Order: sequence, then C-alpha cells, then structure tokens
Amino acid sequence: MAAEQTGKTSEAYPMKGGDGVRSYANNSSYQREVIDSAKWLITEAIAEKLDVDNFVSSYTYRIADLGCSVGPNTFFAVQNIIEALQFKHQRQGLHSQLPEFQVFFNDHILNDFNTLFSSLPPNREYYAAGVPGSFHSRLFPNASLHFVFSSYSIHWLSKVPKPVVDKSSPAWNKGRIHYPNSNDEVVKAYQAQYTEDMECFLHARAKEVVCGGLVALIIPGRPNGMHHSQSPTTGVLESCLMDMARKGIISEEKVDSFNLPVYLMSPQELEAAVDRNGYFSIERIITELGAVPATQSQKISSNFRAAFEGVIMAHFGYEILDELFDSFGKKFEVEFMTKPMSGSSSIFFALLKRKATN
Amino acid sequence: MAAEQTGKTSEAYPMKGGDGVRSYANNSSYQREVIDSAKWLITEAIAEKLDVDNFVSSYTYRIADLGCSVGPNTFFAVQNIIEALQFKHQRQGLHSQLPEFQVFFNDHILNDFNTLFSSLPPNREYYAAGVPGSFHSRLFPNASLHFVFSSYSIHWLSKVPKPVVDKSSPAWNKGRIHYPNSNDEVVKAYQAQYTEDMECFLHARAKEVVCGGLVALIIPGRPNGMHHSQSPTTGVLESCLMDMARKGIISEEKVDSFNLPVYLMSPQELEAAVDRNGYFSIERIITELGAVPATQSQKISSNFRAAFEGVIMAHFGYEILDELFDSFGKKFEVEFMTKPMSGSSSIFFALLKRKATN
Repeated sequence: MAAEQTGKTSEAYPMKGGDGVRSYANNSSYQREVIDSAKWLITEAIAEKLDVDNFVSSYTYRIADLGCSVGPNTFFAVQNIIEALQFKHQRQGLHSQLPEFQVFFNDHILNDFNTLFSSLPPNREYYAAGVPGSFHSRLFPNASLHFVFSSYSIHWLSKVPKPVVDKSSPAWNKGRIHYPNSNDEVVKAYQAQYTEDMECFLHARAKEVVCGGLVALIIPGRPNGMHHSQSPTTGVLESCLMDMARKGIISEEKVDSFNLPVYLMSPQELEAAVDRNGYFSIERIITELGAVPATQSQKISSNFRAAFEGVIMAHFGYEILDELFDSFGKKFEVEFMTKPMSGSSSIFFALLKRKATN
Repeated sequence: MAAEQTGKTSEAYPMKGGDGVRSYANNSSYQREVIDSAKWLITEAIAEKLDVDNFVSSYTYRIADLGCSVGPNTFFAVQNIIEALQFKHQRQGLHSQLPEFQVFFNDHILNDFNTLFSSLPPNREYYAAGVPGSFHSRLFPNASLHFVFSSYSIHWLSKVPKPVVDKSSPAWNKGRIHYPNSNDEVVKAYQAQYTEDMECFLHARAKEVVCGGLVALIIPGRPNGMHHSQSPTTGVLESCLMDMARKGIISEEKVDSFNLPVYLMSPQELEAAVDRNGYFSIERIITELGAVPATQSQKISSNFRAAFEGVIMAHFGYEILDELFDSFGKKFEVEFMTKPMSGSSSIFFALLKRKATN
C-alpha cells in the first residue's frame, strides 16, 4: 500500500491560498457558476443512480471532494451533495435512523488546509476531514467512499511530460508553454501523460469507491472531434513571458523549460480511459456545461492568476508575478476585445458508477 | 448532529506551529519520552484487549490521535499502534487479506495542519486525514473508530472556568493564574469545568468508538489522594507576569483575568467520570508513567514555552512573549536548583474499552 501511495511522483502547484484579494478563495467565481449549473445534475445522479440500499448498513455516507482547494466552492458543492443524499434517504423511507456524513476534503500536500479548515461552515451537518496528497495515487481505504466529486481538477496532469522539456527530444516545446499551437510530437507527449494519469486516477478510485457508488466529474476539456489547435491557447501568457525574457528579467531558457501541466481531454478520451479501466460504467456525459462569458475579461484574468500563480511561481520565482500578471491583464483585455473566441473551451460533466465487481 | 458538533464553545490555544527553534515540533522531546515509555503498554493493549474479530469485516482499521499537535510525536505513536495491529492481525491468521489503516490526526481548528501534513512520513503505511475541531465535541461518525489515542491533551480544559474570572464570584482568582495555590472555591470551579469537559469527551467517544474498540490516554495528572496544593505550581510564570505588571508593561487587571485552562486529574477522578458515562470499562491504569528528569531545567523551560505560548499570546498579545520567557527561563532555573520538587506531577496511562452495548 505504501508503494501505491508514494510510488508516483507528482508535482504539486496548489491554488493561491489564504483569503487575500488575489487568493483562489476570492477568485474562483467562474468555477462557482459552473458548480451551480451542475447542481441539478448531481441531485439527479444521487436520486436515480446511487445504490444506497446495498452499501449503507450503518447509515454513514462518506463523500470526497478531490482537488477541493481552499473553498468556498467546495462547501457549496458538498452541501448540495448532502441535501440530495438526505432527500433520497427520506424518500426511501430510511428515516428511522438519521444518516451521518463524513466529508473528506482532498488536495495536494501544499494546499492551504489551514485556510480551508478555518472557513468550514460552522453549522455544517457533516464530520469534516482534510486529506493531503495527489489524487493520482491512493488516498483512502478499500471500498470506503460512496460519492466522489471533483470539479476543475482532473485537467491538471501529475507533472509536465518529460519529452517536452528534453532538448534532445523531437517533442521539445521550445518557445511555447503548452501544446495547442505546438507540433504533433508535443501533443502526443501531453496525450501520453494524460493517459497514464487518468489510468492512475481510475485505478485508485476503483479500489476506494464502494460497488454502486458514484464519481461525478466537472472537467474543463474540448468537444469531441475538435483538434487541439482549436483549444484555448495560452498565447497571451507566452508572449508576456517572452517580453520579460527580451527585457532580461528572466532567461529565454527558463521560458523554454516552462510548460503548463494541463490537458484538455474530450468526452471520448474519458470514455476510452473508463473502458480500459473496466471498473466503472459511464452513466451520463453532459457537454457544454459552461462557456466563458464574453463580457468578463477582467474576471477571467484574475481567475487565471489565482489558478496558475502556483505553477508559475514554482518555476520562475515569486519576484516576477506582479509584473507578469499586470502585463497579462492588459494584453488579455486587448486580445479578448479583438477576438473573444480565440479557441473555444468546453466544460463537461461526467458521472461514473462503480460496477458490482471486485 | 450539527448542534452536537458546534453547540459547545471551546477555546483553542494550539501548540506553537511551524518548525522553528521555538516550535512545538522541536520542543516536545519530553512528551516523546513519555510516549516511548507507554509504547509497550499500547502494544500489550492491542494484543490482549482489542476485539478485532467482531468488528473488522473489511480489514480497515481506523485510528485517531486526539490533540495530535504538529508532530513528530504523533507519528511515532501512530507507527507503534499500526505495528501492533499488524502483528495481531498476522498472529490471528488473518493475513490472507492485508489490513489497511486510516489515521485521523485531530487538533483544534487553529492547529498548524499545513506543517503537520508537510511532515507526514513519506513511507507511511496508512491513509492520513486531518480532523479539525475540539475533542470535547463529536468529530467522527457513529461507530467508526477502532483505536483512539490521546497523549498530553485531555488535561486541557475546553475553556477557563467562568467563575475564576468573575470579580463578583467567591471563586475570583485574583493575582493567580492557576488553582494549586488558590482557595477552595477556585479549585471547585476548575473541578466543575473538568467534570463537564470529561463528560463531553466520553459522551462523544462512546458514540464514535466501535464496541470492543479501545481508548488509550496518556494524562499529566496528580496521584490519588494528593491535595491540589501539592500539584506543580505555575508560581514562576505568575511572578514573571507580576514583575511585568509592576514595570507597567502589562496591566495588573490583565494578569488577574488570565488563568490557565488546565486541570490535573487523578486516576480516581477519571474512573468516576468513566463510571458516570457507563459506556466504557477501565482495562488498565498505570501510574507514575514518567517524572520530570531533575537535570533538564532548560528543556522543561523551552517545552513549557512551546506548550503555553498560544494561550498566553491569546490573552496578552505577541509583544510580551520574548521578555516573559526570558525572565521565566532564568527564574525557573534558580527555582529548579533550589527546590526541584516544588510540587510533583504524575503522568498516568489509562486504557478504556468500549462496552458491547449501544
């Protein structure tokens, strides 16, 4: 078990902690909107797809949010899940014994759990626990979870694919920080990393989720059939970094060796991974869950900082952040005004159910 | 359930966080020695008293350390518990399926969980979770724990007894910061708070621990029959605070309203509380588990700071700490040389077993 937990190296770039003006806590309203729009999907999933009769002998439901960050979004999502479970419990006439809930908030070890714990809702109807570690590895005992939720998280890879930072590889991604505008070799390297990571994710969850339990995922991805070159590019950030290299603030080599560990999967790619794993059935996939509102460039820009600051800081250091994101904000606004649809993103919802095989 | 979790106000004064020179992590070697001396008691308790056959259908053992602080002591204690469980599991011929372990590290919400999580042993053979909140309330679902451990924690009261800071009460503890040298009314107020807190502690654990499960406690207390006036006094700290009041650094009123929320129970008092609760049997009590080594005044002094800094800072502010503990260190050394046994403490071990009644 120890090997399973720690055998896989995973790089951790947590969302911006604390509760300051630039924190993820105060810059994740867009993610909140998406969670809201998935609310009824979760409620419906629990009402129609969760097999409570089989597994809840002691009426304790165990729920996990994987990649929860610091809140408050995770608290809204969890509250919704609990209300849906309470409703189902009552409707099935099981209310002779009131159910209890234990909620596991998971994120990387470097996530700001102190802030998360301080902001737990005081009147919560569940027992809260924080679980530090990568969701690409085992985090929980066998068959111990009834409902797993993960929003805006599994598009993060466990690490930057090695070939894209290897000068001797045809996949070396010189001058770029992501794959959408890069050559096929770079795309293949990202795909290979995604495939490996998703295999680890599903393998771990297959052990942890009880038979009949559910895994609900909100995933920023790309529509089926869309070529990667049409994915949203990080061209603006790339050009800001190159500007700073030209000014001598950072070295060009440093920019060359920087790549975002993010992959935008399609629903078909997820289905293929679930098939290969074999322990889950796909109960639902809802595409086009959300699209970036075209009028909120500033909001997107500050959300972007809260989400990516960690990974950028780990590579370039703390000092460049303010200048980088100042110029990013300005460039982004101009870019956004002239061609707001430069690459379209697609957020989709997927519901997996653990099959009744061990 | 929510009411049960949050209905009891509890003041939280965590141990000094981080890993600096004054941190609890680096100033808790004495507590470590006591844990070491209790090691065989834990091993024996698990071997002889834990009823594994009845409750571990899925071979997942759930363990909690209540008041774990930031490590490393909690990791040594947990490792010992797990080795004892593995040994018992093997000896009973249950090794066809390897057991799994989930460990819950509990402390107050303001405990430095970020430091705790960062220092988790990388090759641990258990799934780790942090649980924020007061152990005077419910923290876990019904019948979900197999082994509960708590070391150097349940002598902390949930709050300072109200009467001792009430000027109109006969229990007003003017000029003193604890009860050993105070009048009977003060002692009674502390006793009443202890009784209420221990009732809450045992009530919560009775719900959370499975029938046949164990609760192992290491408690700094006082021997049966010893009068409170013989308990170790905080006279040195008291006189340092009065010195500062005389110099005008803090007000005398501020010293009057400060009291340590700590109660040194006797084994008999614990037995009485367990009897009143009714859900546990007392399997063992071992007294004289440890005594403060007479040659290590400096170590005691720095341990004292790491343990009490939080509660002092909350009342007097950050600014006075260095001056206070400088003078404390000096005074303590003199005091220690002249009369090293000014009040004797007694650390005892208690093993409770959850009875087979619901």
